[in-house]
This record gives sequence, structure tokens and C-alpha cells, in this order.
Amino acid sequence: MIQQYTKENQMNRKEHIRQLEPRDRSRIEEMVVSSGKFNDVEIETALELADDTLKEGDESDYIFVVLEYGKEHPALHGFACYGPTPLTQGVYDLYWIVVDPAAQRKGLGRYLLEYVERDVTKRAGRMLLIETSSQETYSATIRFYDKNGYQLAARIKNFYRIGDDKLVFLKELT
Amino acid sequence: MIQQYTKENQMNRKEHIRQLEPRDRSRIEEMVVSSGKFNDVEIETALELADDTLKEGDESDYIFVVLEYGKEHPALHGFACYGPTPLTQGVYDLYWIVVDPAAQRKGLGRYLLEYVERDVTKRAGRMLLIETSSQETYSATIRFYDKNGYQLAARIKNFYRIGDDKLVFLKELT
Repeated sequence: MIQQYTKENQMNRKEHIRQLEPRDRSRIEEMVVSSGKFNDVEIETALELADDTLKEGDESDYIFVVLEYGKEHPALHGFACYGPTPLTQGVYDLYWIVVDPAAQRKGLGRYLLEYVERDVTKRAGRMLLIETSSQETYSATIRFYDKNGYQLAARIKNFYRIGDDKLVFLKELT
Repeated sequence: MIQQYTKENQMNRKEHIRQLEPRDRSRIEEMVVSSGKFNDVEIETALELADDTLKEGDESDYIFVVLEYGKEHPALHGFACYGPTPLTQGVYDLYWIVVDPAAQRKGLGRYLLEYVERDVTKRAGRMLLIETSSQETYSATIRFYDKNGYQLAARIKNFYRIGDDKLVFLKELT
């Protein structure tokens, strides 16, 4: 079971993280599409992970949480999907972390990432891995991981396509 | 469709590579177990890949081939499982390549690997990736990749467990 997690700060804003529910699916799709960063196959992959989590529940290989934001009218503004890395002891992959462009620069990405790190630690995870693309559209994402204590552990040149490398970021959790 | 591929050399030996068939399943299990290199989860994973290929056929994400060896009484002495790496253009993963310990040092591993490389090239693959463990039990495997033109592209420290790194080998196919 994922604990619900709520924080209020001095600006009276409110963030809230909860498990994915069936009614969230269309909003997940909207956020992935409107981010403008993902191609059709990637969008389909995100929705497949959502569907798998909704169908399998605690039996799923994935943990899928959503971020609600807003005091008066809380709405979905982000999500994260992560899970244990197959064949490892205590390693987790963060497959997706997305914050709605309209709600960025409010610290919501960090809020979501810190939630994931705490949850992985509770599940006896010792390391979180994030794979991403070296493309220019991901430069803000890469800075985000760097600022949050992730080190670049590997680069596979021309992985996604010629000129588009795979970067593997890693954080040891304590 | 995978082409059948047969070679006879001056020693009158005979290798033959063909697609996995349902009758091969128990022999696959036997080879994975007798190699002594794989734990229960890994053995289960190999059999899941075999089952997926048998069930889905050409629709499977995996290509699973077996190596028969012996002129008079050909028997199964190896297998390989590979497939397109999700979200990439033209990259393939070699998930498994196994040669029965009783049939090693006859060049069968190289024969199987070269078959895979040719097949991936035919499928417009441009790169083959192999992930393996840094454990001492894999040192012969690592030398095998090295001798066959694979470069170490990445190392994720303590990936499988503390002290057991993930190594990613890569070969660009032409």
C-alpha cells in the first residue's frame, strides 16, 4: 500500500500524492501529449504502464502515483511510475516522472521525486536508476536530475537513434 | 521467418540453427540449469522467454533459436534469444546465449553469435547490446564477447547486488 502524502507550506498551496485510479487515465494521456517531449510509441508505453497498474494492482511490476495540486480545486498535474529492476537486489527504475508544463517551476517535480525516493527506501530499495535521452529537449530534465543528486553512471552512444544517446542516472539511497 | 543455417567443415561435424520448437523446452531448461551460472529467477526468465516465443510466434518481441550439433545424432547444445530493444531505432538486445558446457571449446558459441549478428543485420539492426554480470563466474563469457569484437560500453556498479556490477557490451553491425 502506498501512503497518501500531503504537504502545506507558507504559501497555502497544497500538494497531494496518491495511487493512480481509473478516472486519471485521460489526464495522464493529456499530460504526456502536452509535454511535447514524447513520441507516439512512448505515449503508448506510458498508457500501457498505467493500464497494467490499474489491472494488476499490488501484483503489478509497476508503482504508479499521481500528484494533485491546488488548494481550492486540486487537479492532476504530474505522475511518476517506478518499480523494482528485474534480476537485481534492491535496485529500482524510475520509468516516468512528468509534471504538467503549466505547473512547472513550483518545485512539484522535486516533491514527486522525493516522494519516490522515500517510497523506494521504505521498500528496501538501495538505488534508483533513471534512463533518459541526450536530446536537447531533455536538457532541463538532465539538469533536474543533476540538481537532485543523481550522477551520470553510463552513456550508450546512438542508442535511441543515431545522435541520440541513452544516459543512465543513478542515486544511491540511504 | 528465420532461415535455417547449416555448415559442414573438414572435421565432418555439423552445426545447424533453427527456430525454437515446443519439444525443445525441457532441453532448454536442462542447459540453463546445468550451466551452473544462473539462479532460479534467471532460469525462470529464460523459460518465460521461450514460452512467449512459442506462444506468440512472429508476434513475439523475442527471437529464440536453438543450435543442433552432431553429424550422426544431432542434439540440442545451445540457444540464443534476442530481440529489438524497445524505444530504439535499429538496436537489438541479445538476452541469452548459452552453449552446453559438454559442447564448449568447439567454436559453437561463436557460430551462434555470428548467426545472431547476421540475422539482426538482415532485420535492419545496426547495433547489438549484451548485458552481463561482472561476477567471476562470467569471466570466460566476458573474454568471449571481447574476442568477438564487443566493446564494454557501460558499467553500473553494484547493479545486480553489492559487488556485482552490470556490464553492457556493444557491437556496431555493418
